[in-house]
Amino acid sequence: MIRGRSRWRELSVSLRDHCTLANRIRSQFYSTRPKAPPVIFSGIQPTGIPHLGNYLGALKQWVKLQNDASPDTTLLYSLVDLHALTTQEDPDQLRQWRRDMLAALIAVGLNPDRSIIFYQSKVPAHTELMWILSTNASMGYLSRMTQWKSKLDLPDDSSPFDAAVKMKLKLGLFSYPVLQAADILVHRATHVPVGSDQSQHLEFARDCANGFNHNYGPVLVAPDTLLSPAKRVMSLTRPHLKMSKSHTDPKSRIMITDSREEIERKVKSALTDSVSGISYDPTGRPGVSNLLEILFHLQDDHDQASPQELAKIYEALSMRAFKEQVSGCIEHHLRGIRDAFASLVRGSDRKRLDEAMMLGTNKANQSAQQTMDSVRNAIGL
Amino acid sequence: MIRGRSRWRELSVSLRDHCTLANRIRSQFYSTRPKAPPVIFSGIQPTGIPHLGNYLGALKQWVKLQNDASPDTTLLYSLVDLHALTTQEDPDQLRQWRRDMLAALIAVGLNPDRSIIFYQSKVPAHTELMWILSTNASMGYLSRMTQWKSKLDLPDDSSPFDAAVKMKLKLGLFSYPVLQAADILVHRATHVPVGSDQSQHLEFARDCANGFNHNYGPVLVAPDTLLSPAKRVMSLTRPHLKMSKSHTDPKSRIMITDSREEIERKVKSALTDSVSGISYDPTGRPGVSNLLEILFHLQDDHDQASPQELAKIYEALSMRAFKEQVSGCIEHHLRGIRDAFASLVRGSDRKRLDEAMMLGTNKANQSAQQTMDSVRNAIGL
Repeated sequence: MIRGRSRWRELSVSLRDHCTLANRIRSQFYSTRPKAPPVIFSGIQPTGIPHLGNYLGALKQWVKLQNDASPDTTLLYSLVDLHALTTQEDPDQLRQWRRDMLAALIAVGLNPDRSIIFYQSKVPAHTELMWILSTNASMGYLSRMTQWKSKLDLPDDSSPFDAAVKMKLKLGLFSYPVLQAADILVHRATHVPVGSDQSQHLEFARDCANGFNHNYGPVLVAPDTLLSPAKRVMSLTRPHLKMSKSHTDPKSRIMITDSREEIERKVKSALTDSVSGISYDPTGRPGVSNLLEILFHLQDDHDQASPQELAKIYEALSMRAFKEQVSGCIEHHLRGIRDAFASLVRGSDRKRLDEAMMLGTNKANQSAQQTMDSVRNAIGL
Repeated sequence: MIRGRSRWRELSVSLRDHCTLANRIRSQFYSTRPKAPPVIFSGIQPTGIPHLGNYLGALKQWVKLQNDASPDTTLLYSLVDLHALTTQEDPDQLRQWRRDMLAALIAVGLNPDRSIIFYQSKVPAHTELMWILSTNASMGYLSRMTQWKSKLDLPDDSSPFDAAVKMKLKLGLFSYPVLQAADILVHRATHVPVGSDQSQHLEFARDCANGFNHNYGPVLVAPDTLLSPAKRVMSLTRPHLKMSKSHTDPKSRIMITDSREEIERKVKSALTDSVSGISYDPTGRPGVSNLLEILFHLQDDHDQASPQELAKIYEALSMRAFKEQVSGCIEHHLRGIRDAFASLVRGSDRKRLDEAMMLGTNKANQSAQQTMDSVRNAIGL
């Protein structure tokens, strides 16, 4: 069982086309739905303090979405702690990880007064709508979903009732996509940023909405996908694997709360090669290329240099000098986040964390209740 | 698809042993759990106005349980409208049927100030706990449950992923027992009156509670079953079948709101036989025996005559005279219920119905929140 991995994959739209995400969303949106303002929803599992891969893969984009959004755009970011129960069994760890992840979201720049940041488990309408959707969700369709198979390390042609499977498969994991559909639909999300591995689930959510509307009239909103190529940050020690919390070696990842010294030490010991000079070659030089990718993703949007262009800039440096540049850049970027996180978790802003949680809970419940009132009325409850 | 049939089967404990139900519950209860007071939970699908079979099979016993209960006993009766969604697709009908069933429960004698009478859909903790239980509910176990097979008219050895099955089986019907377990466990029920066709689901609820407690400590209460032989009232026109709302001929059943004339007409046209005199012989004389059973069940508990003894009393009557006795007895019993129902639905007590609904909603939410606070704390939410 793989623990604590985020199933809500990163949003990774290329920002190099000089077209802001918010503008792209608006134009995409208004072409099909002229009236209702955009609602962006995304979720992340409460896996504790995020590492650099989580941050660059998803959180940094969430902040950008927030900051570029038009004033009439609603943004909802959910810590999907009910989903976490399908793999997480240590209550104290879950308690800690939820709180750390909430603090991290605020520390990286999400503003609880602008975005609705909330724990999924604090909004009961998520499971209410899930039940309602499940009364029309086909077992055959769900059995073809790939996620429960990958979580159990099973081949794609597995059936939930193969003898070997049914011993370990739980209803929660099997019905995960229905709760995920409810997460999205209960807030009338118009846009959901996801990685390609989640596009199957988004399609299912669209089918749930369309099926409901077919039976009961136009109540639910079928969301559009903001699909984009994955932005993968690789392990520092095994650069052919994604940076992950589940890897045993803590030197394989940089946490967003790491001190300057920890960052320097981890980058210094990152697996590279003995080729002289710096060049971008993901296949031949995965370690160096990963460091270049990190530099690339750390940049702000404007005048952004590609990994190849960055390689040119650092071409003549020794590996040691190059690594110093990389750790300096990471430190520069994470310093403010680290300080904000410490202040929220241990320092003067602890109260702010509780207030943010309550504010998010209230706003998310309001958002969900609007939908549920229409849903209940439509189905006769 | 069979519509509107109550899956929560009737409680039908023989009352002839001069031992009140409440006393039996107390003695059974205190033998195993010396401290916590009893909590009785039962549910019924909102199928509209009940017929005589519903009334004698379940509702009359619910009233008796209420009236005989010790002061420290909590009684909860739920209209399980979320379950109804697995077979019910007409919103206006569901709306009407929920309200009619609530009025019927009060009209037959359930007292909203004593018993907690509530719509399941008004207590979101039911679906919240269902999700939590589902993360530990085995797909293999659920696939062996018989109810989804009987609802789809499938043989008992069907798998949810047989080609013919998976086209029509919905997740809601398949996961029905998990919501039912949550219904019971979220109120810490100690005793659940059920018919034998539901004992499998009760066992599942016990397993859910024990599994949760094994993982997280003693939080949930594994309920005891008040299992008892079914009390079946048969169709008036086809006395080898159970009286049922789904039969096409309305003369096959007496509704608890039927007028004196309707009762007389239906009993008069009940299928009997041309044997002279009255005798009890369920196999040879099913129609007459059914009328004797109805008389038997309509009696109060004390000095209760068996169907055989009743047959002796009416032995010499003509069929016509006997049927007049039967309709007179039914009319005598239903008159007050009919008037109370009319007053609640159309008359001066309409406001009382709304107040009862709100009172039940509040009390049931309080009861569920107590459990959910412990559950959330135990699992780290």
